[in-house]
Amino acid sequence: MLTESGCRERRRLLWERLPACDLIIISEPRNLFYLSGFLMNPTELSGWGLNFLLLSRTGECRLLHDNKVRSEAQAAFVDAREAWSWYDFGNSAPEKLGAAAAALAALLAARYSAARNVAVEAGHFPAAAGAGLAAAPVADAGAQLSAMRAVKFADELVCMRRAIRATEAGHLCARTALQAGRTELEVYAEVQAAITRAAGEPIVLLGDFAAGKRTESGGGPPTANVLRAGDLMIFDIFPVIGGYRADITNTLCVGPPTHSQQQHMLALQAAMLAAEGELRPGVAGAQVYAACRASLVAAGLGDAFPHHAGHGLGLGHPEAPFLVAHSTDTLQAGNVVTLEPGAYIKGWGGARIEHNYLITAGGFERLSHHQIGF
Amino acid sequence: MLTESGCRERRRLLWERLPACDLIIISEPRNLFYLSGFLMNPTELSGWGLNFLLLSRTGECRLLHDNKVRSEAQAAFVDAREAWSWYDFGNSAPEKLGAAAAALAALLAARYSAARNVAVEAGHFPAAAGAGLAAAPVADAGAQLSAMRAVKFADELVCMRRAIRATEAGHLCARTALQAGRTELEVYAEVQAAITRAAGEPIVLLGDFAAGKRTESGGGPPTANVLRAGDLMIFDIFPVIGGYRADITNTLCVGPPTHSQQQHMLALQAAMLAAEGELRPGVAGAQVYAACRASLVAAGLGDAFPHHAGHGLGLGHPEAPFLVAHSTDTLQAGNVVTLEPGAYIKGWGGARIEHNYLITAGGFERLSHHQIGF
Repeated sequence: MLTESGCRERRRLLWERLPACDLIIISEPRNLFYLSGFLMNPTELSGWGLNFLLLSRTGECRLLHDNKVRSEAQAAFVDAREAWSWYDFGNSAPEKLGAAAAALAALLAARYSAARNVAVEAGHFPAAAGAGLAAAPVADAGAQLSAMRAVKFADELVCMRRAIRATEAGHLCARTALQAGRTELEVYAEVQAAITRAAGEPIVLLGDFAAGKRTESGGGPPTANVLRAGDLMIFDIFPVIGGYRADITNTLCVGPPTHSQQQHMLALQAAMLAAEGELRPGVAGAQVYAACRASLVAAGLGDAFPHHAGHGLGLGHPEAPFLVAHSTDTLQAGNVVTLEPGAYIKGWGGARIEHNYLITAGGFERLSHHQIGF
Repeated sequence: MLTESGCRERRRLLWERLPACDLIIISEPRNLFYLSGFLMNPTELSGWGLNFLLLSRTGECRLLHDNKVRSEAQAAFVDAREAWSWYDFGNSAPEKLGAAAAALAALLAARYSAARNVAVEAGHFPAAAGAGLAAAPVADAGAQLSAMRAVKFADELVCMRRAIRATEAGHLCARTALQAGRTELEVYAEVQAAITRAAGEPIVLLGDFAAGKRTESGGGPPTANVLRAGDLMIFDIFPVIGGYRADITNTLCVGPPTHSQQQHMLALQAAMLAAEGELRPGVAGAQVYAACRASLVAAGLGDAFPHHAGHGLGLGHPEAPFLVAHSTDTLQAGNVVTLEPGAYIKGWGGARIEHNYLITAGGFERLSHHQIGF
């Protein structure tokens, strides 16, 4: 879980980025969690609503929430809480999102009418809530938070290590679940159960679980495609666990791999190693990509590598820093990034591997420890 | 999946509800799916974005989407598609939601500047997109859609029957997964895998999986709580499958149930039967609740029944019609509702059962067929 000191420090840094503002309103669930520890988990009904954090220049942080998330609100690191009644088991309930926006408009008019320079998340603040503001929002807190989120705090790293640990259990499970005659979906369901048990809580499991011919295009969700001996299967597993994501990949073979399949995987491992050599503060994202690409080109796989070398990871993904040819990002200590070389050949098959890394002052720490390779 | 004719008919009905408008903008993912078949699944990266449907009075329906959801956009039942480039694997990507709102503002200014009476979802339309409108929105499409969604279309019922079928497989699995010494979470993970296999695709599993003392407060997500002989365990299973929800419940006992546990369950079944007797068009939601409550009161369980008798179900839940004491809703043919009598006693334990029903001209059709009782 995120800590109170982490949340307060992040709010302080957000104010540094918005010096002209006197009120910041946050509603995007991941940013709400980041700044207050208020978690809206999609595996619970409470995850499907609209709640608001109101940050005043005085330092006060107020949470406006519906009455069905009282326990989550109680656990949040805020200075004040205000509940509006959405559904009380006695009366018909209104449409939830519109009612939440109206509750915010009322609160703004009642308590925040003096605010003149307001920041909201441009892509999330509901227009109807603006009726409670004396002046239209002047700044985009969403873009500022997106930039902030690229450098992780200590409490975030605790969450991410935990998410990665649980996801590693999924990769371990995949090694035994992968059997000829099963479908991609059957393997997925076993992996999902393994990650859930390891996480110790319900998760949302996103990922690529693609075998055989489907590996030629790099991935996709699991289907009824039946595994056959000799098939490759890409496991790019990126669950949401306690709000944070892991994103780690391996490719397995159904039965013994061929010489060329083994060669292919070694080329990916060499590309990962080449990119790892560039992981340190101050290095351009483009340079990490170039190292990965050059290694694959040398192996004759340049044309088979169509995507990024990796990307930032945290409450969402992909996010900054982007490890691509024309990246404008530069690695900083505290970034968490993936490296994920992959190569896909029409008529032959494809494979991808991926680790997660913390950029440190001295270089990097590899955060994931699942076994790469067949 | 939803059908093209269903989507077109729903758009036609939405226009009937907003006769003064010349443009309707939809962004809430469930409403987007409802009106166009464009599915944002939280188990895929494509589910974590912001896309827009622009409905013109002329009848044209345009989808504005980011470049990462082209295949979903291609499958949507719309007249025109416009992609904005969020992330191309070559350049750093901007904060996604803010960029989506900016893309909408640009499209509005370029193509929809003549619109004067615009409806948006009050709780979802991002304020920043309003910069592209010639006049502030005048109507809340969200409230209209919420009302519309209470009466299901034929294609929605196909989706819901499919979701309920898969969820029944979870209840069947629970009967063998429930064993003393296991944790709630281990049982949950097995149930989750069973539903995933039955659904044939990744799902998001919400639900109450609470055993022993935890049943006294009615539920909660699964924990490390270890099952002991004699424990009750409430399985209130409400996954999201292909956009739609099932919501069906049973309570099981670890080992042989006691006489009083069996009596308790029979009282719930009697309350369900009593409420079923009121399921027909024209009956007030309050009357259904009253029948359920009266039955539990007669069994001496009135004080143990703290919640609704049931609620509407569809793309979300709980939604209209609400089956509560002061409901303002009246049953209509085409509603899908749950009945979920429950009774919880401090120091003893609690139980709940639940079926899903379609309200028909003649009364109701029970949609769920899992075995109720121990």
